This record gives sequence, structure tokens and C-alpha cells, in this order.
Amino acid sequence: MSFDRLLENIVQKQNPTVVGLDPKLSYIPAYLREESMQKYGKTLEGAAAALLAYNKGIIDEICDIVPAVKPQAAYYEMYGWQGVRALAETVAYARQKGMFVIVDGKRNDIGSTVEAYAAAYLGNTEVEGESIEAFGADALTVNGYLGTDGITPFLKTCAASDKGIFVLVKTSNPSSGEFQDQKLHVPYESLYRAVGNMCQHWGLDLPGKYGYSGVGAVVGATYPAQLQELRKALPNTMFLVPGYGAQGGAADDVLPAFDKRGLGAVISSSRAVLCAWQKEGCSETDYAKAARREALRMRDEVVAKLGIISLEGE
Amino acid sequence: MSFDRLLENIVQKQNPTVVGLDPKLSYIPAYLREESMQKYGKTLEGAAAALLAYNKGIIDEICDIVPAVKPQAAYYEMYGWQGVRALAETVAYARQKGMFVIVDGKRNDIGSTVEAYAAAYLGNTEVEGESIEAFGADALTVNGYLGTDGITPFLKTCAASDKGIFVLVKTSNPSSGEFQDQKLHVPYESLYRAVGNMCQHWGLDLPGKYGYSGVGAVVGATYPAQLQELRKALPNTMFLVPGYGAQGGAADDVLPAFDKRGLGAVISSSRAVLCAWQKEGCSETDYAKAARREALRMRDEVVAKLGIISLEGE
Repeated sequence: MSFDRLLENIVQKQNPTVVGLDPKLSYIPAYLREESMQKYGKTLEGAAAALLAYNKGIIDEICDIVPAVKPQAAYYEMYGWQGVRALAETVAYARQKGMFVIVDGKRNDIGSTVEAYAAAYLGNTEVEGESIEAFGADALTVNGYLGTDGITPFLKTCAASDKGIFVLVKTSNPSSGEFQDQKLHVPYESLYRAVGNMCQHWGLDLPGKYGYSGVGAVVGATYPAQLQELRKALPNTMFLVPGYGAQGGAADDVLPAFDKRGLGAVISSSRAVLCAWQKEGCSETDYAKAARREALRMRDEVVAKLGIISLEGE
Repeated sequence: MSFDRLLENIVQKQNPTVVGLDPKLSYIPAYLREESMQKYGKTLEGAAAALLAYNKGIIDEICDIVPAVKPQAAYYEMYGWQGVRALAETVAYARQKGMFVIVDGKRNDIGSTVEAYAAAYLGNTEVEGESIEAFGADALTVNGYLGTDGITPFLKTCAASDKGIFVLVKTSNPSSGEFQDQKLHVPYESLYRAVGNMCQHWGLDLPGKYGYSGVGAVVGATYPAQLQELRKALPNTMFLVPGYGAQGGAADDVLPAFDKRGLGAVISSSRAVLCAWQKEGCSETDYAKAARREALRMRDEVVAKLGIISLEGE
């Protein structure tokens, strides 16, 4: 009912980063694509088979050094239900390899519809008395624009199944300020801060052993001042930090996201890891080892600033 | 690149309502469930087959009197990729029957991730030179919390493929006010109004023949005063209005959503139509005809207040 398993993974691997599995076909080596297309044709099924093979290669190479993966639902849904099947199989494979899996779906709705999303990604679906895991992830990103009604059903499922959610608070993109930075008339704080405050509040229902609840917040690496403000204001809220690398965030930028133990945040990188083989210019059959090299480089870059990560202390 | 096709459907059928296809297993008659489970077992596949059979029955009975359906993604995702396949097949079946299909997914992200969602639901996916429709819907609900970066890629796809989006503005749920009703410090307007204003602005890129752009807004039937405010403030923004019936909105409440021609809004109802057979207590094999009766009742209730709907005038 919290992010304890994620925190334990981070400390065990001394690595507070997560690899985003956002596989575009153009990231995937030709030999893998050709293998899949020969089997299934130039179809959604062929594309999905290539995604899955590619992901498995990456996961095999990083599962001993990276605590978590974050597949982005959009890149699977664009290949139809066949792509969504590859998402389900990717989640299952990563979990089987001991990784913590955050599905980045930014889901949002109200009432029984949120219950359905919670069942889909974090809980179980009931079919005539049988209880079945549909996607079986460990955490899900969600959008809080609809307020408490849109969050409470997630909390129930998280409490029952030891899972967590990350709520969008301050996103990494350039126009995130259009709404999120709006100053509210009363009490003159920003909208993102108001959403952040609610994350802290919602998290009271999902306390964790290490001081962090099961309700985290997405805060972009591209906004270090807001990371600092929110770290101070939300002491029990774990941060998922996108925007590192490709979007411009650097190791110094993300330091304010962590507490004194080196806990409290997980830094996400996708393209830099997935496309490392293209950037390196190495052999395409070496794509997964190149991903590992980049994941290690990123870990070292962050940990050099952060020092030892520990579950002890407060 | 607008909602022209939806508006034409509404006028042709003189019916400004949409049926939400949110099929829980408990809504589905036992004979349909048993048929599917006998074939596929008590599995996600069995559940998905039951959903699809049920939806087809409903669509067959309402396609001549209702202009659009709105499948809610969550109720398919909870049955895994098998459920998502039933969603794709439901979309295809409804379109084949001439209905306008709004996928209610409330998707949101930024940049190339939004491009992926747009390709998935509104455009085409490229696979090695082949261009394939993944879900092929006519419109998608989206969440605007991330600002313009999160909307622009949708607009591009809509412009290329004559599709539209509905942005969450003022949602129908009790706690929607927590963030959406916050008064902004400058210029002292509410957040939902600021999001609404942006819908009007984003829509400039997707003008329509009848005065409504391809960027609509979701505004709940449970908030008639806000419907009135927004109708006046956003003259080129089509409204998708949930919360009718089960959530408490009545015909008088939704009238302010329409313009003088009876255009500008589409009222959504799900449970009342889908479960009409249970409420009526009719034979379960009569479930689709009961849905038709309820859809007609709802149409008549709204149209009695609204009068003739016309594409003429402004």
C-alpha cells in the first residue's frame, strides 16, 4: 500500500532511476523488425511482436542494475489491441525479472470508471467468480484534474494490493505552466501546489515504512525550483521525475527532488536509453548492451551527486 | 477537421444524445455471458466476447435513432488486451452502422506521446510503409492539464483526418470543484473557465461549417449554471455533457448547453440505457429493445424542451 518495494529496489541497486519503455519502431534494430514482419507481415501484430522482442532484450540487460521500468501506454495503444497485448507481456516479463513496473497511462475519470482502471492496472478483474490480473503493474500514473472522486477508487485498490499511483503535479513540458502555474486567488498558491498538497493528503490512507506513502507526484526535471519547493512541502510524497536528459534536465536539476537519505524520487529516462545504440553507432545487435551502458552512465551521473542511498534515518 | 459529421447526424436523427457503452459484466444478460464463457471459459477472453456480443445487440437496436456512441476505455481495459480488442471491434461495428464514435479515454500527455495517442484513436499508425487504423474512432476525450503541448499534436491529426477531441473542462462529479472551480488570482476567473477559453482558442485551427470547431469541451449536466456561462463564453465549442440521468442531471439542466438552433451539445447517458432491461424487469433476451426504448425516452425528454434541431442560422 505504498512505494516501499520501489524504495527497497532503489536502495538495493543504489540507483534511483527508471527506464521508460516507449519503443517507437524507429528505435528498434532492423533485424528485430524484419524477423517480426516476416512472421506476421507489415501489420499491427508484426509491429507489436517487434516491440516485445526489443523490450525483452532491454529488460534482460538492465534488470540487475535498474530498479524499475515505466512503459508508456500510448506507444503500445498506437499498435491497437495487438500493441496492448505487447504492453501486458512487457509488464509481466519485467515483473518476472524482479523489476518494479510503473505503467505511464495518466488515466483519469470518476467513480466506478476509476475502479475499472484500478482493476485493470493495479488490481484484479472479476470474471464470474474468477479473479484475474489484467495488466498487473505495480504503479500507475494518473491525472488529478477531476479531484478526490477521481483518486479515491485508486487508493482502495492500492491499499488492497500493495500498489501505488503517481499523480501529475508539475509536468516537464514547456507549456505546463499554462494551467499548473496559475496562481489561485485564495490562498495565493499555484494550482500545481494545490494538487501537490492533495497528493500529500490522499497519501495518508497509504502510509509506507520509509516515510513515503503510496500516492506519489509527477514533477518534471525541467523545473528544479518547483522540485525543491514541493520536496519541502510534501515530505511523504514520492516523486516520479521525467524530463531528464532528452528534455534538458541534468543531475544538478534533480537533486532537490531527494531527501537527505537519497530517497524520495525516481528519475526517468526513455529515449536516451532506448536509442543508445543509434547514438553510439554500435552494431544493432548490440542495442541492449548499449542501453545497459547508458543506464549505468545515467545512474553514475545521478549517484555521483547524491551519494549513498539509505533506508535508514528520516 | 471538426464535429460537422456529428452535427449532421444529430440533425438527421433529431437527437442530441449519445449512448455510453460502458458495459460491466453485471449489465449483461446471463444467456450472453454463458454463451461466451462456454466458448472461452471464465477468462478475460470470455468476458470480452460477452461485452462485444452485448454491444453489438445494443448498437443494432439504436443505430437508426441515436447519432453517436461513447465507449469508455476503462471498462474494456479492465479485461486486458482481450477487452481492448473488444473495444476496437465495438468501434468498428458502430462506425459500420453509421454511428459517430467518441472513445472516452481522457488521454493526456505531451509531444510525441500525444502523437502516439492521436495515431491510436484518431489517425493511422505507420508500420514499415503501411498505414493502418488501430482503433479508428471519430473523436476522443482528452485531459488538458498539461497545456498546449498536450493538445497541439491532437489538432494536427484531427485536421488531417476530419476528427475531433473533447477536452475536460467542468466535469460532472461532486469533487470536480476542488481544482476546476479554483478562482485564479489573475484575471479572477476559474480554472475550468481558463481551460474552456483555451478550447475555444485551440479550436481556431479546426473550424467547422456549422460554427463549431473540432475542439469540444466536456461539461457536466450536474452544473447547469456553468453550462450556461460556458455556452455564452465559448460560441464555437461543442459540448459533450455527461451526468444526465443516473448522476442527477435533468432535461432542464442541459438546455443551457445548446444554442438557438438546438446545436452545440451532445448529452450522454450510459447506465440508464445499458441497464434498461434490468430496470424494466423485461425478459433478458429483450435487453437491446429495452435499451432502444430508453434511448427513445431520453431523446424525447430532451427534444421536448429543445424543439426542432437545425443546421441553419447561426
